[in-house]
Amino acid sequence: MFKPIKNTKVYEHIIEQIQNMIVDGTLKQGDKLPSERDLAESLKVSRASVREALRALEIIGITEVRQGEGNFIKTSFDNCLFEPLSVVFMLNKGKPEDILELRSILEIETVALAAARITEEELKELEELLVQLQDTENEEINVLLDKKFHYKIAQASKNFLIVNVLNVISSLMDTFIKEARGKILNNKDNADILMQQHEEIYLSIKHRNPKAASLAMSKHLQLIYDTLMKKEHL
Amino acid sequence: MFKPIKNTKVYEHIIEQIQNMIVDGTLKQGDKLPSERDLAESLKVSRASVREALRALEIIGITEVRQGEGNFIKTSFDNCLFEPLSVVFMLNKGKPEDILELRSILEIETVALAAARITEEELKELEELLVQLQDTENEEINVLLDKKFHYKIAQASKNFLIVNVLNVISSLMDTFIKEARGKILNNKDNADILMQQHEEIYLSIKHRNPKAASLAMSKHLQLIYDTLMKKEHL
Repeated sequence: MFKPIKNTKVYEHIIEQIQNMIVDGTLKQGDKLPSERDLAESLKVSRASVREALRALEIIGITEVRQGEGNFIKTSFDNCLFEPLSVVFMLNKGKPEDILELRSILEIETVALAAARITEEELKELEELLVQLQDTENEEINVLLDKKFHYKIAQASKNFLIVNVLNVISSLMDTFIKEARGKILNNKDNADILMQQHEEIYLSIKHRNPKAASLAMSKHLQLIYDTLMKKEHL
Repeated sequence: MFKPIKNTKVYEHIIEQIQNMIVDGTLKQGDKLPSERDLAESLKVSRASVREALRALEIIGITEVRQGEGNFIKTSFDNCLFEPLSVVFMLNKGKPEDILELRSILEIETVALAAARITEEELKELEELLVQLQDTENEEINVLLDKKFHYKIAQASKNFLIVNVLNVISSLMDTFIKEARGKILNNKDNADILMQQHEEIYLSIKHRNPKAASLAMSKHLQLIYDTLMKKEHL
């Protein structure tokens, strides 16, 4: 629920199906895609839609056409016109640890920038999110509020590129580290600790103390890393 | 010269033309694209190719079709199927400072990871790149070697996602901070300093000293930032 409503165009569905095959490992680098006809039959769509989706994947730089042979997942993505980070991440068998590591590096520094650059208005919005987090019992809403809290901090850094990369990381986390927050809250004590940590982050930003903000974020992300990676290996 | 040889398919040319119009500000968020016919005429290509390129931009999530009105640059990129970071960066009027800031954050931490994780073989390759940098007078080759040096360090971090994001940043720098190295070398003293800095980075990695590596990288990137931003504003 609350997922962004995606366009429901046929070719987008097809591309998503192919993405899923990449995520679950059915399709790997260098693999041949099913034929146009097979894809159309198994997905119950027209061949024209399949052709369109295949063309799009080629243009984006995920697949290549070998004349007379069919469509193949590329083996190298150096010449991509665009940077389909998440797909390339999947194809290169990226590990969840990589996502969390990159997130840590970025967020620990971003929160310091936010502490230095946040406007009064943004600070107020951040406080409101914190209050909502404290007041809400509904876990699904809390997941959203949690995301918004981190997103607001990224925006306060005033570096649009960082906001963008963090967005990509966030969608990678959704895909690869399912129910991250759920896992963390399996341990009941963690709920209180998480709340405390968010408060600490908020307060250090409010006091415009970049170093304290980095430290608070670092502790927060360490808890997330420890919990997710421990559960991941159980 | 030495640019990666891109596919020379017609629709890719068209997409690049449209990307250029975005880079130079001709096309902004919410703007209407020229009609299929006008694009075909001005680019001297077939309307079928134009249609294909427009479709691709739509699928990637850069443009949207409004029935009966034509193709428009989107105003929001939240629902992008892919993450065309560089195009979104352009459209959001990202500043060169943003690129350098993100690069700093990432490379300062990445070099520390590299110092901890680099293999003997990678260390040898890094040393070879350094020797080549010292021996080469040709400025264009040096630019490439410089990039390879930083790329090798990113790879040594063993975090594929970081390598990928740094690749995107590198292409953004090529697009938005043209002749970065040329600008830095306008000042003759800088050439020696750059060489020294690369040596320092290499040695701290060789000694597997993450903190020293971060510090050396930080000094290096500060020089780049200062030089580029000063020249930028002249």
